[in-house]
Amino acid sequence: MIKVGLLGAGRIGKVHAKSIVADPRTQLVAVSDVNMDAAQQLAASVGAVARNTADIIADPAIDAVLIATSTDTHAQLIEAAALAGKAVLCEKPVDLNLETALACQAVVSKAGRPVMIGFNRRFDPNFAAVKRALDQGEVGKAELLSITSFDPAPPPVSYIQVSGGLFRDMAIHDFDMACWMFGAAPTAVTAIGSSIVDPAIGAAGDVDTAVITLHFADGRIAVIKNSRRAVYGYDQRLELLGSDGLLQAGNVLENTVAKITTAGATSAKPEYFFLERYMKAYEAEWRAFVDAVQAGSAYPVTLQDGVTALAVAEAATLSWKQGRTVALKDGRPVV
Amino acid sequence: MIKVGLLGAGRIGKVHAKSIVADPRTQLVAVSDVNMDAAQQLAASVGAVARNTADIIADPAIDAVLIATSTDTHAQLIEAAALAGKAVLCEKPVDLNLETALACQAVVSKAGRPVMIGFNRRFDPNFAAVKRALDQGEVGKAELLSITSFDPAPPPVSYIQVSGGLFRDMAIHDFDMACWMFGAAPTAVTAIGSSIVDPAIGAAGDVDTAVITLHFADGRIAVIKNSRRAVYGYDQRLELLGSDGLLQAGNVLENTVAKITTAGATSAKPEYFFLERYMKAYEAEWRAFVDAVQAGSAYPVTLQDGVTALAVAEAATLSWKQGRTVALKDGRPVV
Amino acid sequence: MIKVGLLGAGRIGKVHAKSIVADPRTQLVAVSDVNMDAAQQLAASVGAVARNTADIIADPAIDAVLIATSTDTHAQLIEAAALAGKAVLCEKPVDLNLETALACQAVVSKAGRPVMIGFNRRFDPNFAAVKRALDQGEVGKAELLSITSFDPAPPPVSYIQVSGGLFRDMAIHDFDMACWMFGAAPTAVTAIGSSIVDPAIGAAGDVDTAVITLHFADGRIAVIKNSRRAVYGYDQRLELLGSDGLLQAGNVLENTVAKITTAGATSAKPEYFFLERYMKAYEAEWRAFVDAVQAGSAYPVTLQDGVTALAVAEAATLSWKQGRTVALKDGRPVV
Amino acid sequence: MIKVGLLGAGRIGKVHAKSIVADPRTQLVAVSDVNMDAAQQLAASVGAVARNTADIIADPAIDAVLIATSTDTHAQLIEAAALAGKAVLCEKPVDLNLETALACQAVVSKAGRPVMIGFNRRFDPNFAAVKRALDQGEVGKAELLSITSFDPAPPPVSYIQVSGGLFRDMAIHDFDMACWMFGAAPTAVTAIGSSIVDPAIGAAGDVDTAVITLHFADGRIAVIKNSRRAVYGYDQRLELLGSDGLLQAGNVLENTVAKITTAGATSAKPEYFFLERYMKAYEAEWRAFVDAVQAGSAYPVTLQDGVTALAVAEAATLSWKQGRTVALKDGRPVV
Repeated sequence: MIKVGLLGAGRIGKVHAKSIVADPRTQLVAVSDVNMDAAQQLAASVGAVARNTADIIADPAIDAVLIATSTDTHAQLIEAAALAGKAVLCEKPVDLNLETALACQAVVSKAGRPVMIGFNRRFDPNFAAVKRALDQGEVGKAELLSITSFDPAPPPVSYIQVSGGLFRDMAIHDFDMACWMFGAAPTAVTAIGSSIVDPAIGAAGDVDTAVITLHFADGRIAVIKNSRRAVYGYDQRLELLGSDGLLQAGNVLENTVAKITTAGATSAKPEYFFLERYMKAYEAEWRAFVDAVQAGSAYPVTLQDGVTALAVAEAATLSWKQGRTVALKDGRPVV
Repeated sequence: MIKVGLLGAGRIGKVHAKSIVADPRTQLVAVSDVNMDAAQQLAASVGAVARNTADIIADPAIDAVLIATSTDTHAQLIEAAALAGKAVLCEKPVDLNLETALACQAVVSKAGRPVMIGFNRRFDPNFAAVKRALDQGEVGKAELLSITSFDPAPPPVSYIQVSGGLFRDMAIHDFDMACWMFGAAPTAVTAIGSSIVDPAIGAAGDVDTAVITLHFADGRIAVIKNSRRAVYGYDQRLELLGSDGLLQAGNVLENTVAKITTAGATSAKPEYFFLERYMKAYEAEWRAFVDAVQAGSAYPVTLQDGVTALAVAEAATLSWKQGRTVALKDGRPVV
Repeated sequence: MIKVGLLGAGRIGKVHAKSIVADPRTQLVAVSDVNMDAAQQLAASVGAVARNTADIIADPAIDAVLIATSTDTHAQLIEAAALAGKAVLCEKPVDLNLETALACQAVVSKAGRPVMIGFNRRFDPNFAAVKRALDQGEVGKAELLSITSFDPAPPPVSYIQVSGGLFRDMAIHDFDMACWMFGAAPTAVTAIGSSIVDPAIGAAGDVDTAVITLHFADGRIAVIKNSRRAVYGYDQRLELLGSDGLLQAGNVLENTVAKITTAGATSAKPEYFFLERYMKAYEAEWRAFVDAVQAGSAYPVTLQDGVTALAVAEAATLSWKQGRTVALKDGRPVV
Repeated sequence: MIKVGLLGAGRIGKVHAKSIVADPRTQLVAVSDVNMDAAQQLAASVGAVARNTADIIADPAIDAVLIATSTDTHAQLIEAAALAGKAVLCEKPVDLNLETALACQAVVSKAGRPVMIGFNRRFDPNFAAVKRALDQGEVGKAELLSITSFDPAPPPVSYIQVSGGLFRDMAIHDFDMACWMFGAAPTAVTAIGSSIVDPAIGAAGDVDTAVITLHFADGRIAVIKNSRRAVYGYDQRLELLGSDGLLQAGNVLENTVAKITTAGATSAKPEYFFLERYMKAYEAEWRAFVDAVQAGSAYPVTLQDGVTALAVAEAATLSWKQGRTVALKDGRPVV
C-alpha cells in the first residue's frame, strides 16, 4: 500500500483526495494546507491526519506526495519532495516563470527522482482514444490539429491578475495537448488575442479570446482557440486531420436526451466545467501515476512536458505582445 | 425520346410533371384532369397540351402514361392504359378495395404489359442505401425491422372519411417498405390503434395513432409506428436489426445548423412533409421507370407489390377492428 | 448512519456493495450468500462481516437489507425482512410467479413496511430526464411510447430455461419503464415473438426477438422491441411522441470520438452491457432508497410496481402463446 | 423575361447554365467559350446559340451576362459588360492581382453599373442560416469565428502554378465568408502555411495546409483552416462563438444512414466536392441575382466584396512569405 501525503486541501486537492481514496493501492495518510482548518476538515473526511507540509515531506513513512497547492509554491515543493525521495505528482503548471521551472528541473534531475505533472486532459477517455487511434495510424500521418478550449465563464479579475495571463493559465493545457498529440515541441508560436468578453480583463493586461498557432519542424500545424466564456458550458473538443482521415473528440454532454418540437431538436449542453468533464480523467491520472510508481516505469507526463508547455506559453505571450511569430530554440523563446 | 401523357394535374401530378420534364429521355406531351383548367394550366407551363384522358390513352403516339388521378380511378386507368399498350406508372394505391385491385391485376396480366406502382419511398436515397447495405450482407441476416412514419398534421376529417382509413391510406407505404426490405409478404398482421390526436378522427371510424406488427414466415418481425401528427414535421425513419448489426435511416433535416446556448444544443427540424422530404425520391422513381422502359427490364415496383401492400392494409384494418391477429393466405386476409 | 445487510454476493450484489459503501449515510455491515466463500470475500473487501441470511434479518442492529439473491428467494426474503422491520430494497423481479408475488404483497401489506423494488433504469439519468420533461409538459400530452431494449448477447440456454422466459426476465424492465412513463398500468397486452437469433432458445420454449404492444385505457400506446442480441452492445433507447413534440433518450456511447475516412464517419459503440450502462443508475437508485428511508417518504419504486410489471409479463407470455391480445383486469391477465 | 448570355462553357459554366434555365424569369439565349465546340455543345443542350464573347456583350437584346471564363479574363469582361450596360454576375475571383481588380472597380464605378461577384457559399442554406441567426442576435455579439475548409484532393501541380496560390485560389472563399459574417473587413492578417500533403506543391512555391487568422478592429477574430486534402470529401464547416452561444454549420452528408456493428457506428461521408455540396447554393445565387436585377436593388455580393477578399488574400500571402502579421489599410496590405 502506497502511503500518500496530499499538499493542498482546496478545490482541486479535494478532487485528488477522492481518487487517492478510491484506488485500493494507495492510502491517503496526511493532508496539509496553508489554511489549517481546510486541511483538518479534508483529513477528517478521509481518515487522514492534518500535518504541516514540511513534516509530510520529511516523513520517511510517506511514499508519495501529490502537490495541489497554489502555483507559486509548486517548484519549491517539487524540489523538496524529490530531494526527500518521494514519488511526486504535481498539479500544472510547474511555475509561471520559465526560468524558475528550468531551475526546478535541474534540481530534480540531480535528485534523480522523476516527477509527474498533472496534465489531466491526457487522461480524458475521449482525447486518449484520439491519441491511441493516431498512434495506431488510423488516419495516417498527422497534418493539422485543431483544439477548441473554452471555459464557461471568466474568473474574477483578481484571479486574472495573478494567473500569469490566458496563455500561461488556460492555454497551457492545450499546449501540452498539442505537444502530446504530435509527440514533439513546436519550433515557433504565433498568438493573436483580444479582450472582447470583458474589457476589465483587457484593462488587467490580459486577453479573454485567443487563437494560437503552433508550427512544428516537419510542417505540421496546431491551432488552438481559447475563450474565457462559452455560456453553454465547458467546450473541450479537438480534431486532427491526417493523410487518411479526420479524428474528432467531442464534448461530453449532460445526458443523451433530445427534445424535438416546432423549435427544432434540442439536446443537452456540455458538462459545465472541468470538475464535471474531467472527473474520470483525474481518477485515471492517479491510477496512471500509481501504475508507474509500482512498475518503476517512466511517468506518462514528465517534468519536461511541464517545462515545455510553459516555454510555449511564454512564447505565445511574447508573440501576442509583440505581434510577431516567436521561434523556440533549445526550449526557450527566441527574444 | 419517350412521349408521356400525365393523367392528373393536382398536387402530385405537378410533382411528377417536373420529373418528366427534367429527364432528357422523356417528353411530357399531354396532360389531363377532371378539372380542365388545371390540366391546361399545367400543360401550358411545361409546353404540353391539355387533352382528355381517353384521348391520351388512345393516342398511339404516346408511349407512356403516368397516372396521378384520384385513387378511385386508378384501377380502371391502369387497365385501359395497359390494354392500350402503354408503359404505365401509377401512383399508389392500386385501389382501396382488394378485390378491385386483384381484378385489375388479372386484366393487366392478360394484357401482358407490366405496370409500375409509385411507392416513392423506395427511391429515397436513405432507404435505398439501407436496402443496398442489407442486401450486401452488411448487417448479416435481417431479424427485426422498425419503421417510424408520422405525418406532421392530420388531414381534414372529410379526407379521412374517404381515405380508406389510416391503414390503407398512410400505413400502406410502410407495408410496402417492410415487404421490400424483407423481400417477402407477411404471413400475419397485428394492428393496434387509437384515436388520441383528434377525437373527430375516431368519430369518423378511424384511428390516428397505430402500431402494426408484421410476422414473416421465417420468424422475422416488422413493427410500424404511425401517427397522424408529429408537430415538428414529417418523421420518416427506419431501423433494421440484423445478426451482425443495426442499420438506421434518419430524417432529412432542413439544414445542418446547430445553436448551442444555455438552453442546450438546438438543430433543425425534419423537412416538413412528403413534398420536401421525398422530392429527390420522386425524381429517382421516374428515372427508374424510364430505365426499365428503355431496357425492357422488370419494373422495380410491380403491380403485385401494390396488391400485396393493399392486402396487408386490409388485414391490418381487420386486425384492429376485431382485436386479433389476422393471417394472410394466398394473398388475402383470412377472415 | 444506516447499517445495511447485503443478501447476495454475486455479480449484482457486488455492484450494490459499491453503492452502499460510497454513500456516506450508509454502512455495509454484513454480507450473506449461499456460497459462503463469496460472502466472505466480498465482506472482507468492504470491511463488513460475512453472516448467514437469517442472522442478518434477525439482527436488530441492522436497519436495512438489500436483497440481491437468486430470484426464487426474493419473495420469502422480502416477507421475512419486512416482518423484521427492516427497510428493504429488493432486486427485480419480485418473483417469476404472479400469485407468489401477490401473496408476498399481502404479507408485506400486513407488516406495514413498504418495500422498494430495484428497477434500476428509472434512475438512469437519461430516462429520468425524459420522465421529468414529460411530467413538466415539455411535449404536451403523451401518445405513443417506443422502447428499444436489446441485450448484446443471449445468455446460455441453461439460464433461459430457468429465467421465466424473455417476457418475465428481460421485458419486465421495459414494462416497468412504460408504466412509469405513463403513470398507469396497461389494460391489454399484445406480444409477438420469434426465435431467430438462436434456434436453441426456441427449442427451450422461449423467444429471442419480440415486439410487445401495451394498450392504455385512454388510448395511449407503448411498443417495446426486444432482442437477445445486438452485436454492437447494449441498446437501450426510448422515444415518446406527445401532442407537442418528441422526446428521445439515446444510448450511452463508450466515448465521443469520431473517425472520418473514405469509409464514412465512425463513432463509438454503446456501452457493452448493463454493468457499464447503468452503473450510475445503480448508485442513484441506492441514494434514492436512502433518501426515502431517512425522510420516511414513499419509495420511488414500490412493491406494487414490481407486481404490476410481473402481471404485464404474464399477460405478454400468454398473448404470445395464444396469439391473441390479453386484457388485464384487477391486476391479473384475463385468461 | 431576362435574356442572358453565358460567357464560358466549362465545368462551372454548365452549372450556371442549369440555374439560368431552371429560373422561369430568365432565358439563356447565348453561350460563348474560347473552345467553340464546348460553346456549341452547351448551347445546343439548352436551346441557346453559340456566339463569340464580344458579340454577346455588344448585343443590346441581351440583358445580363454571367461570366464563367478563366480568371485572367474576368476583369476585362466585367469592364466591357458593365460599360455595355449589362447586368453582370461574375465568378470569383475578380482577378489574381489586386491592382488589376482595383482598376476594374474604378472602371465599373464610372460606368455606374454595379456588378455581382459569385461567392456561392453565401447562398449555401446552412451558412445562410447561420448568418441569419447571427444577425437576429440569437447568440449575442460575435466574438470568434472558425472556418474549416478542406478540399477532397489537391489539384494538379500545373493548376497550382497558375492558381495564384492557396490563399488567393482556395482561401478567398473563406475570406469572403468571414467578412460577410462579421460585416467588416479585417485590419490585419496572420497566415501560417506548410506543404505536407504533397512536396510537389511546396516545390511549386505554394502551401497545401494553412491556418489564417483575421483580426478585426473591434477585437473580433476569425480563424480559417485550409487543407488541399481531406480524403473523406469536401469539409466545409464553420462555427461562431458569440456572447450568448455558439452557432455551427456542419457538412452535408451523402445520406442519413448509420450502420452500427462491432466496429462502431458508421454514418455517411460529406458530399464529395463543391459541385455536390453547393449545387443548391449556385441555384440560390442565381435567383438572388435575378431578384436584385428585377427589383433594382443592391446585389447581395458586390464588386467591393470581391476586391476586399482579394486584398485579404494578398495580405495572407505576404504574411506567410514574410512570417509576420500584415496590416490592411485603405483596402491594401501594408507592405
